[in-house]
Amino acid sequence: MRNVITLTTDFGLRDYYVSAMKAVILGIAPEVRLIDVSHDIPSQDIMAGSWVLKNSAMLFPSKTVHAVVIDPGVGTERNPIALQVGDQYFVGPDNGIFSLLTADREYAAVRLTKREYLREHPSSTFHGRDIFAPAAAHLSRGVPLRELGEPLEELVSYRWMQPIDDKDGIQGAIIHIDKFGNLVSNIPGALIRERVWGRSMKIYVGNVILDNLSNTFANVTEGEPVAYIGSAGMLEVGINKGNAEEMLGVQKGAQISIVLQK
Amino acid sequence: MRNVITLTTDFGLRDYYVSAMKAVILGIAPEVRLIDVSHDIPSQDIMAGSWVLKNSAMLFPSKTVHAVVIDPGVGTERNPIALQVGDQYFVGPDNGIFSLLTADREYAAVRLTKREYLREHPSSTFHGRDIFAPAAAHLSRGVPLRELGEPLEELVSYRWMQPIDDKDGIQGAIIHIDKFGNLVSNIPGALIRERVWGRSMKIYVGNVILDNLSNTFANVTEGEPVAYIGSAGMLEVGINKGNAEEMLGVQKGAQISIVLQK
Amino acid sequence: MRNVITLTTDFGLRDYYVSAMKAVILGIAPEVRLIDVSHDIPSQDIMAGSWVLKNSAMLFPSKTVHAVVIDPGVGTERNPIALQVGDQYFVGPDNGIFSLLTADREYAAVRLTKREYLREHPSSTFHGRDIFAPAAAHLSRGVPLRELGEPLEELVSYRWMQPIDDKDGIQGAIIHIDKFGNLVSNIPGALIRERVWGRSMKIYVGNVILDNLSNTFANVTEGEPVAYIGSAGMLEVGINKGNAEEMLGVQKGAQISIVLQK
Repeated sequence: MRNVITLTTDFGLRDYYVSAMKAVILGIAPEVRLIDVSHDIPSQDIMAGSWVLKNSAMLFPSKTVHAVVIDPGVGTERNPIALQVGDQYFVGPDNGIFSLLTADREYAAVRLTKREYLREHPSSTFHGRDIFAPAAAHLSRGVPLRELGEPLEELVSYRWMQPIDDKDGIQGAIIHIDKFGNLVSNIPGALIRERVWGRSMKIYVGNVILDNLSNTFANVTEGEPVAYIGSAGMLEVGINKGNAEEMLGVQKGAQISIVLQK
Repeated sequence: MRNVITLTTDFGLRDYYVSAMKAVILGIAPEVRLIDVSHDIPSQDIMAGSWVLKNSAMLFPSKTVHAVVIDPGVGTERNPIALQVGDQYFVGPDNGIFSLLTADREYAAVRLTKREYLREHPSSTFHGRDIFAPAAAHLSRGVPLRELGEPLEELVSYRWMQPIDDKDGIQGAIIHIDKFGNLVSNIPGALIRERVWGRSMKIYVGNVILDNLSNTFANVTEGEPVAYIGSAGMLEVGINKGNAEEMLGVQKGAQISIVLQK
Repeated sequence: MRNVITLTTDFGLRDYYVSAMKAVILGIAPEVRLIDVSHDIPSQDIMAGSWVLKNSAMLFPSKTVHAVVIDPGVGTERNPIALQVGDQYFVGPDNGIFSLLTADREYAAVRLTKREYLREHPSSTFHGRDIFAPAAAHLSRGVPLRELGEPLEELVSYRWMQPIDDKDGIQGAIIHIDKFGNLVSNIPGALIRERVWGRSMKIYVGNVILDNLSNTFANVTEGEPVAYIGSAGMLEVGINKGNAEEMLGVQKGAQISIVLQK
């Protein structure tokens, strides 16, 4: 028995979509505990969903099943899939949503093709209710992954903006802006420690130039920008008790550079 | 024992309203599992709440209790009620919120009048906490519906914009716009299949004229509008990877027509 | 065993923050039931969070553990704490968030200093995941409060705008505006009953002058403003089927006065 199912969608809560998924799951697995991860992923933003999964899914108890439905291509030929990564299970569309999760981990995946584990007459516009919810529920009841469909060797995978490092420093990009306006980059703290730690550097983002890394945004005066390694292990830029997105005018996708000083 | 209670409100989550309802329910029925359906129904929008109920409530496991609080008339003479529809239970105000659910189903209803199943000294502004939460909790513990109050023969019921069909086609209206901007009409797919299926037709909505129905929005080029039967079984108009509400400038209540071609 | 943990944060649901907290809690206390109180507290708004706690936390079943993370000072020297108030447990930052809850109640508090009850290598920017989630989970498993750290005699406490009453009436302020636009003041109904009840008075807020108190907003014509004692026991001003915040142009912090008439 895998008795927790988490839900991650871009459905919002104005519609019946999340409710219908929960109802279908409880109909098949009445004892399961449902955990809302998020229904507030920006519409069709696969990268944002992938980021949430990367930073929390593997922390859940062993055998948790994660239903992930950010699915701009619902009804097209993209595959509905289930996969196992470590001791966690996932169901969702094969559209890159699992890219960050599987980038450096082994996984086993299947295409969800077995009709007995889907709802009858699945619609072509709401696979969350008709395919992913029942698949998650059956997984949580102990149906083995390989029972749900045919093995799939390779998943759709995006390589979101890897940082570039050379003798002059590291160039990256802002890949996420959180609710507080903190700018999250794709530059791992580990790379910084390996390449530029302890050396004189400047950090450029938007119109701002920062002279060093701090331990936390609380290390600077209120209203001042600050660079630090955030809780996801990446370089972030924030403003102590302020909103960096608004105050620096930086958007997702913007460049961020660490330049070593001579 | 009915051990799931769902919550559907227009309370949002900025205030203590949802939290207080959950606390009162758990105080009476400590073992119940609480399922958030939505707290994001637009303020006082009975029709939007009714739409969510219609499309998901009956999918829940047998004996689920649904607490539904969209209640613009709280504190007036509108009745607080509980009802049974099929194998599901509901509590909420008798203000039309159950219209779509009970339109074509048998039901039994009571006015919530028995003081021992309410909180002491109920406020006149927060029946969610003081009347509906305790009633839902007692129902979930197995108290029979008829114990909660006096029978009520007829509920307040709205007939939201039935479509009109004649020899020229079908005239309906947009009754819901979902989070993705898809326009949901009150024209059932069944009516379309019966009346106009396979015949040459045009679909008019806003400034757009569509030539036919597709199976799913993914059947057209990205950015193009498309008509299809949605997951609620109604005619919808969407835009492949786009937002029809924004791109077509259509609002809730707008007319949508299917016109048969000679 | 304390088998319910509630979560109250200003994290929103766009990020992985709430999900990571839930994962960490379930990892330590797999049987606990998680109840979302709110993740929609306005960013860093300690007063709004304190208001939600005041009006719902004590209604939960005995031994509920409340994790409360509105934490603008994360990573500074503010203390992470756990406390017991009545039969309820709380974890969160010592930044005033518990002010309203502890204003008139006995409590016992500790600083969360014991490393074995925290995550390894806690980050300095995400104590929700690294300190408060594990502390809540351990409390819910029955670890005694005093085991979690050193006793703390006094908490940071704000005295938010006490009303002033004199022979001419009562002067207060709007301390909260709810999702429906109702204006909640800091003037308790009990004070009104004691000081001005049954006497001729006028209530001033924004540009509006009201002649008396009603039982509920439904007592006046639709669209008319009305003063009443709300479900939190405080003087409120609302508009029947309307939004007082928008229609009266009143903001949080605005003055509200009850003036006795000669």
